[in-house]
Amino acid sequence: MEKEIPYKIYLEENELPTQWYNVRADMKNKPAPLLNPATMQPMTAADLAGVFCDELIEQELDNEHAYIPIPEEILKFYKMYRPSPLVRAYCLEEKLQTPAKIYYKFEGNNTSGSHKLNSAIAQAYYAKKQGLKGVTTETGAGQWGTALSMACSYFGLDCQVYMVKVSYEQKPFRREVMRTYGATVTPSPSDTTEVGRKILAAHPGTTGSLGCAISEAVEAEMKQEGYKYVLGSVLNQVLLHQTVIGLETKAALDKYKITPDIIIGCAGGGSNLGGLVSPFIGEMLRGEKKYRIIAVEPASCPSLTRGKFAYDFCDTGKVCPLAKMYTLGSNFIPSPNHAGGLRYHGMSPVLSQLYHDGYMEATSVEQTAVFEAATQFARIEGILPAPESSHAIRVAIDEALKCKETGEEKTIVFGLTGTGYFDMVAYQKYNDGVMMDYIPTDAELEASFAELPKVNL
Amino acid sequence: MEKEIPYKIYLEENELPTQWYNVRADMKNKPAPLLNPATMQPMTAADLAGVFCDELIEQELDNEHAYIPIPEEILKFYKMYRPSPLVRAYCLEEKLQTPAKIYYKFEGNNTSGSHKLNSAIAQAYYAKKQGLKGVTTETGAGQWGTALSMACSYFGLDCQVYMVKVSYEQKPFRREVMRTYGATVTPSPSDTTEVGRKILAAHPGTTGSLGCAISEAVEAEMKQEGYKYVLGSVLNQVLLHQTVIGLETKAALDKYKITPDIIIGCAGGGSNLGGLVSPFIGEMLRGEKKYRIIAVEPASCPSLTRGKFAYDFCDTGKVCPLAKMYTLGSNFIPSPNHAGGLRYHGMSPVLSQLYHDGYMEATSVEQTAVFEAATQFARIEGILPAPESSHAIRVAIDEALKCKETGEEKTIVFGLTGTGYFDMVAYQKYNDGVMMDYIPTDAELEASFAELPKVNL
Repeated sequence: MEKEIPYKIYLEENELPTQWYNVRADMKNKPAPLLNPATMQPMTAADLAGVFCDELIEQELDNEHAYIPIPEEILKFYKMYRPSPLVRAYCLEEKLQTPAKIYYKFEGNNTSGSHKLNSAIAQAYYAKKQGLKGVTTETGAGQWGTALSMACSYFGLDCQVYMVKVSYEQKPFRREVMRTYGATVTPSPSDTTEVGRKILAAHPGTTGSLGCAISEAVEAEMKQEGYKYVLGSVLNQVLLHQTVIGLETKAALDKYKITPDIIIGCAGGGSNLGGLVSPFIGEMLRGEKKYRIIAVEPASCPSLTRGKFAYDFCDTGKVCPLAKMYTLGSNFIPSPNHAGGLRYHGMSPVLSQLYHDGYMEATSVEQTAVFEAATQFARIEGILPAPESSHAIRVAIDEALKCKETGEEKTIVFGLTGTGYFDMVAYQKYNDGVMMDYIPTDAELEASFAELPKVNL
Repeated sequence: MEKEIPYKIYLEENELPTQWYNVRADMKNKPAPLLNPATMQPMTAADLAGVFCDELIEQELDNEHAYIPIPEEILKFYKMYRPSPLVRAYCLEEKLQTPAKIYYKFEGNNTSGSHKLNSAIAQAYYAKKQGLKGVTTETGAGQWGTALSMACSYFGLDCQVYMVKVSYEQKPFRREVMRTYGATVTPSPSDTTEVGRKILAAHPGTTGSLGCAISEAVEAEMKQEGYKYVLGSVLNQVLLHQTVIGLETKAALDKYKITPDIIIGCAGGGSNLGGLVSPFIGEMLRGEKKYRIIAVEPASCPSLTRGKFAYDFCDTGKVCPLAKMYTLGSNFIPSPNHAGGLRYHGMSPVLSQLYHDGYMEATSVEQTAVFEAATQFARIEGILPAPESSHAIRVAIDEALKCKETGEEKTIVFGLTGTGYFDMVAYQKYNDGVMMDYIPTDAELEASFAELPKVNL
């Protein structure tokens, strides 16, 4: 039996998901609604129409339908790079001498280098369908921006990307990939928007944050006819699109009658984690199964493990809707020595609610330990992982080593969201032994929490 | 029928090749033997033992056995990243509005970013088996060096890489990937070897060439106990290992009863082209089938299309054996404005003989046209191709466009050897409109040919 499980499980084309799974339909406690920053009242579809595409707004607000069909045009694009393989890490198991069985769902085999393309192509499709000229967005590590550039190029849409300045500088070639796909890329904060100029004036020399970049992208969208804003994480619609990861994972596991004990994903805004775990949490919500779900976040940006579950602005400029989520405060900016992505101050409202309701655990890890795991994984499994993904690797290895001690044959599944080809500045720091860890102090967080908006609903 | 061909054909694990195919066994005119540079007489296994591993020498000299079993340990490693997909380029066909059917064998889905890993893991395995401490090698674009670093890291071997200086400078992060896998990387020509110092003295400011780097790597190997030299292209053994590409391609085509009309590969030293086409040329040699095989080389380094079929040194320092091959002369160094790999002065002796005997065609293309095809392909098929691979894309698109004119429904297969994530300096030149073409003059080539060694056999 064991022998029959291949190194890589690929689904056949006719086994691929044709619907996304909307976990909200199965949640007893729905995620709290987004609030209009002007009125502090729940956003209606009409409120959202100034920022988002119409069909995406429907998806954003849909708490009812458990399954949403994937349009043909998107399925066609998915077929160019999906299914992604579910890989049995035989070599890693052997090296760790663990009785645990380790699997990873590898989303890095496409040019964006990550899972981000799953939602990018969907959002570009709906923008095109609505007759738009283009879209604006922000990007942190650069994976989302690259993915959106690819998707826009495919549908012939203009793509304007605000890239967090520290990543822009650490990843010079990311910009060039986006340009190759026809996008324009601006380091954020920039002087091209009012909010950017304001942030630059208040914090000269800031290395930027996702929160700033979002504010700039939204402002840019509002000033241009025929443009909407799109976002690569946090939103319900993004998690919905990303469930293609979890649905494929579940189909592959089911095909070989494998039941996972532990499912691990890295968590920044929650797009990968939500996509991977939603179908499994759905089973838990329906009382069918029980899994240990672990969200892994950087110790330098610990929204789930040290944040508050409260309404907060999604962006630094406070132009976007408010969401009830685990947050470090919309002014929180991780230390510049934090190397990877996963630098958003908040967490997906869906995942925040599920975490709050006890459907998953969260843990935080420091970056030298993360790069140690990344390098070990690269040398054994032959894939150079993205720093973000390596947070999940760290915990997967730790859990496998626990199994070695206890002798338990647990089945561990983790999300390997992407590759690290554009993260070599960070790897160089690690290789040179000059990488530093950073944990915000309680006082820093308290100061940030003090600025949380007061919301009475 | 047509409908049933998926976007990507993946073989099952039990359909993977377990033997490499040695095309020399089927060649009537065998490739000419390597010559000892000291005696100008055919190299014996004993002569070669100073440079290469024992089992690799056997493979190098084997003109008899058509199939050579792949050792278990290598099959195990192959399973971590193989099979590579054979992709039907439905979107490209649609965009070109061609009746042609286009397939590409994509070798870029591993961290080395190319097909080079297929031979790297084999050579590292045999080195380990022989009890060596480490290996030395050269790398041009950096794909081979990365692949060898990965393979050496897997088997716990030391890996010393001499990297052509122009690539070292254009691809700063390549070095860091190799370091992450534990390798040491030296830009070539360097002052760490006698031959390097000699070349630097004769050509100050040279940007290097594969021929120089080979000389340095061989010298480094000879000076260290427990080290051998390994090479990523040109040699018979390398083509042998790379036939895993062609065998998988053939198995995937056969599975869906697809018969290609045209098979296209880029050609530098010949590793990818030879690996892709050998099984098909084998059928031609045995009189079973007929295909159009096209080798595509850069106009700036046109060994097949403008070189001489003659004995020449494999390296600039003239410390390596001589091979009978299509060559531009061992002192030939392509213009520094040539952006990609494919910068070797010679061509695999096996492919040279097959080309000489009429089993394949060759054509050369200029680099702006190559990057135009690369960008077009990236935007349509979603894969950012390596500049080397894009030579094949250029000709595949040209052939598909010819079919559009004639209405012929030809089936075109090409090798997409790798990804361009580390080639963004070159893409940037193209994006900025400052990329230049370069074609050596007849006078330049004649001057280079004048230095070919006189060999009387």
